[in-house]
Amino acid sequence: MDMLWSGWGDPAKATPLPDAVTGLLRKLLGVKPRGTGPVALDEIAVPASPLTAPACRALADAVGGEEHVRTDAESRIRHTRGKSTPDLLRMRGGDTSGIPAAVVLPASHDDVLAVLRACAAHDLALVPFGGGTSVVGGLHPEQPVTRRRCFVALDLRRMDGLIAVDPVSRTATLQPGLRAPRAEALLAEHGFTLGHFPQSYEWATIGGFAAARSSGQASAGYGRFDDMVLGLTLATPEGTLEAGRAPRSAAGPDLRQLVLGSEGAFGVITSVTVRLRPLPETRIHEGWRFSSFEEGTAALRRLAQDGPRPTVLRLSDETETLIGLAQPDAIGSPAAQQAAGCQVITGYEGTAEGTAHRRKRAAAVLRDCGGTYLGEEPGERWAHGRYSAPYLRDALLDAGAFAETLETAAYWSRVPGLYASVRDALTTRLTEAGTPPLVMCHISHVYENGASLYFTVVSAQGDDPVAHWAPAKHAANEAILAAGGTISHHHGVGTDHRDWYVREAGELGIEALRAVKRRLDPAGLLNPGVLLPLD
Amino acid sequence: MDMLWSGWGDPAKATPLPDAVTGLLRKLLGVKPRGTGPVALDEIAVPASPLTAPACRALADAVGGEEHVRTDAESRIRHTRGKSTPDLLRMRGGDTSGIPAAVVLPASHDDVLAVLRACAAHDLALVPFGGGTSVVGGLHPEQPVTRRRCFVALDLRRMDGLIAVDPVSRTATLQPGLRAPRAEALLAEHGFTLGHFPQSYEWATIGGFAAARSSGQASAGYGRFDDMVLGLTLATPEGTLEAGRAPRSAAGPDLRQLVLGSEGAFGVITSVTVRLRPLPETRIHEGWRFSSFEEGTAALRRLAQDGPRPTVLRLSDETETLIGLAQPDAIGSPAAQQAAGCQVITGYEGTAEGTAHRRKRAAAVLRDCGGTYLGEEPGERWAHGRYSAPYLRDALLDAGAFAETLETAAYWSRVPGLYASVRDALTTRLTEAGTPPLVMCHISHVYENGASLYFTVVSAQGDDPVAHWAPAKHAANEAILAAGGTISHHHGVGTDHRDWYVREAGELGIEALRAVKRRLDPAGLLNPGVLLPLD
Repeated sequence: MDMLWSGWGDPAKATPLPDAVTGLLRKLLGVKPRGTGPVALDEIAVPASPLTAPACRALADAVGGEEHVRTDAESRIRHTRGKSTPDLLRMRGGDTSGIPAAVVLPASHDDVLAVLRACAAHDLALVPFGGGTSVVGGLHPEQPVTRRRCFVALDLRRMDGLIAVDPVSRTATLQPGLRAPRAEALLAEHGFTLGHFPQSYEWATIGGFAAARSSGQASAGYGRFDDMVLGLTLATPEGTLEAGRAPRSAAGPDLRQLVLGSEGAFGVITSVTVRLRPLPETRIHEGWRFSSFEEGTAALRRLAQDGPRPTVLRLSDETETLIGLAQPDAIGSPAAQQAAGCQVITGYEGTAEGTAHRRKRAAAVLRDCGGTYLGEEPGERWAHGRYSAPYLRDALLDAGAFAETLETAAYWSRVPGLYASVRDALTTRLTEAGTPPLVMCHISHVYENGASLYFTVVSAQGDDPVAHWAPAKHAANEAILAAGGTISHHHGVGTDHRDWYVREAGELGIEALRAVKRRLDPAGLLNPGVLLPLD
Repeated sequence: MDMLWSGWGDPAKATPLPDAVTGLLRKLLGVKPRGTGPVALDEIAVPASPLTAPACRALADAVGGEEHVRTDAESRIRHTRGKSTPDLLRMRGGDTSGIPAAVVLPASHDDVLAVLRACAAHDLALVPFGGGTSVVGGLHPEQPVTRRRCFVALDLRRMDGLIAVDPVSRTATLQPGLRAPRAEALLAEHGFTLGHFPQSYEWATIGGFAAARSSGQASAGYGRFDDMVLGLTLATPEGTLEAGRAPRSAAGPDLRQLVLGSEGAFGVITSVTVRLRPLPETRIHEGWRFSSFEEGTAALRRLAQDGPRPTVLRLSDETETLIGLAQPDAIGSPAAQQAAGCQVITGYEGTAEGTAHRRKRAAAVLRDCGGTYLGEEPGERWAHGRYSAPYLRDALLDAGAFAETLETAAYWSRVPGLYASVRDALTTRLTEAGTPPLVMCHISHVYENGASLYFTVVSAQGDDPVAHWAPAKHAANEAILAAGGTISHHHGVGTDHRDWYVREAGELGIEALRAVKRRLDPAGLLNPGVLLPLD
């Protein structure tokens, strides 16, 4: 099934906001209802594909037939941009700037190599496309104004197999177009799980997770996706790069780590070998409450540093706890209205015995740090609604509100300053612009040495919502760099974060990566302007 | 204190082999006693330094005075090659091929940048020198025969400070020339440990650990050194590269992982930010015995995959268990002679409560896998002698034997085949050459998805010991690649493993790294021929 072209997920699952929430938005944030929703798909005027007939034939030859090269309007619209709020606002308005000339569907690594050769021969740029869930402009290439090549989207959905399982080593090799739920289903047949459950879980793909260094909601227990990757195959215009021969090695720089996070700028990931874990016997979620974000942060730090480590560990700040966005199902509910302090969600997965022991010890730590146990209900409610926040965003946009998220990470000692200054930057800038926002935050991922902060912003839209948001996003990015955070903990760089990424990585760091790009993609065909600035 | 120039460690700690062992070597391996030991240091004829007076002045200016540029014979001899057995055999014979023109001692990052500028201006190659413990030719640059520049050793011993500790984030920033015992002492003042205890512990440096992806004997609990690194500063001929702003990030490829394992070929590591752990309350070691290497391997795999994870976890094969090299102190002792099966050493560090719990549960797993508990004595004996094996090698060389080690790693399912084929390659080749060897092996490091194998080879020397060993080492390297292992788990690439590393990383992987090298070190000053082939 295809995702909703103008929003998130399965159109059948769309749910309007309760009237009470709409009223709240109006009273609290001055949100004005909009008369119109997204334009209709078939009303969008799409310019004819600029793909030449010889280029089209070459691509068809590369992928085994013209049925795997699509130039119809709907296919192209469905591969235009990603799922950031500005992306959605543009799509809802029928703006198809950034539409690909064609969608190409390879079935194998060799197909991908052949497509890259065809692109080189016909001077086409190429954007790898997995689940299409980028929220950082990762599917929107930029090119020098003097030289606008057309580009094709390389949709990897036909490459969706489980290639091999090694139950002794607990590894599996997966194709890049495999969506996460299908990967879990295939691995479950062998008694294994990957344990990667990001908010984009239902739609995102294995290749995308690797390309963008995804991190899931159970990362405290299962690690980030880049922790799970043992090997990668990368198809580049200059040939094939294979990385990862042993779990760990001292043989030079870790080439896996050069492919992870490369966001399609160095090549197309055509297989990923991952670490597996046994399917858990039990899975339980609970809620805790702390009197302040500071107190809750101290509790999370203690669990992350001294253990025991829950599988899921998250802390919402006062605003997020109050609004109940920690449980999207419950937004505006009386329970959420009565919330006070900061809510923590803990989850435990594993063997029955191991889970019971960890849970008991973690509870003692949380209690010792000032936490109040809220029972399983808030935890299970969170787990039930864990993938629904993006649907909620569509409903907010329909109601005339603006809603967007952004995230960062830092060492523990910098977390309080980072939290304060990003919140302040967003609040100040949007208030100055006449749309005072609600800024909510949670700690979404913890490490021994630091944590991530995930911000949600809701405000009125302003007259031109995309332009209205840009200065606030800019201010948040500046605040992140100034406070010692990274420009992205798990969303990636894309085009949206690129200019701040360049500052974070430093001139020589970027130059080293550009040297790699020039070697692997000398004609600059791959995702131009994504991750790295144009030459 | 300086390390023994012709062997390992503190000359005062050298211990001769017991006569019984010498007799055993003679009977078992046909080792013939040698009349002579190493030549005397002051008898070695060293050619005058080829450093020109202007180059010498430029280097002195870079490091704050001519007292920090040493061209005397002894300083240069002490910076010639590393500590592989072929290195030692050459040094013992007075062979000073590969001697640096000078030893330069910078005191700061800026000094290093200035040295690099002086090297560029005067066409000098440069070899970073930490503890001098490379066993893979990492201190022995190669240059095109048509263009033999002289090279200087950059000894980082003056850069041996603890720059900063962040107790909240549990991080510290260390200078590269800090030796491990001093780093531990400085961190202990703050209540922390790094937990990195490789066999080279007493001599090796923080910068070397990072440059060569060191892995310590407590890696099951504390991780490898590359797991501990959060940030690095690299001084290159093109300027400074800083990597690591947050514990983890989705902002592009992980530049830390491009510096780790770069072995001085991209730049000089001038600071390392590491993860800290609290000083353990308790530290205990134990011995276990399994009936076979296969049974012991299965037990280690179960602990690595399902836990609980001891801090130290090692398994000696039958030969190593029998010879008692697992406890260098006990070699040839009656206890060692009676050993049968395969010995496992487990160690536990941490809080008293956590250690007791892990130990009890791990014991249940080991017993369930067929292990017999041997008590604390073998464990404590191993811990006591854990840094003495290199001293033993000197004694073996003195006695006329040849002794060398090599190591690899692979996924669990490949471990049995890798073990058999490397052992077979070494045995076959050395037996054909007339010196049937003892080949011992242990699993030194475990991961969820695989393990490392560490081989020790002892044989008679042959007439020309360096040339005699080369085909056996070659055969072992070929066997490693053929059986799916990595050419090095923790010793690194240097010059000795380079040709196999090139095959392991693949043409395009190597080309990507060469592109980085050309950008950071366009004149090819840094460690020419180490890690990467000459252009």
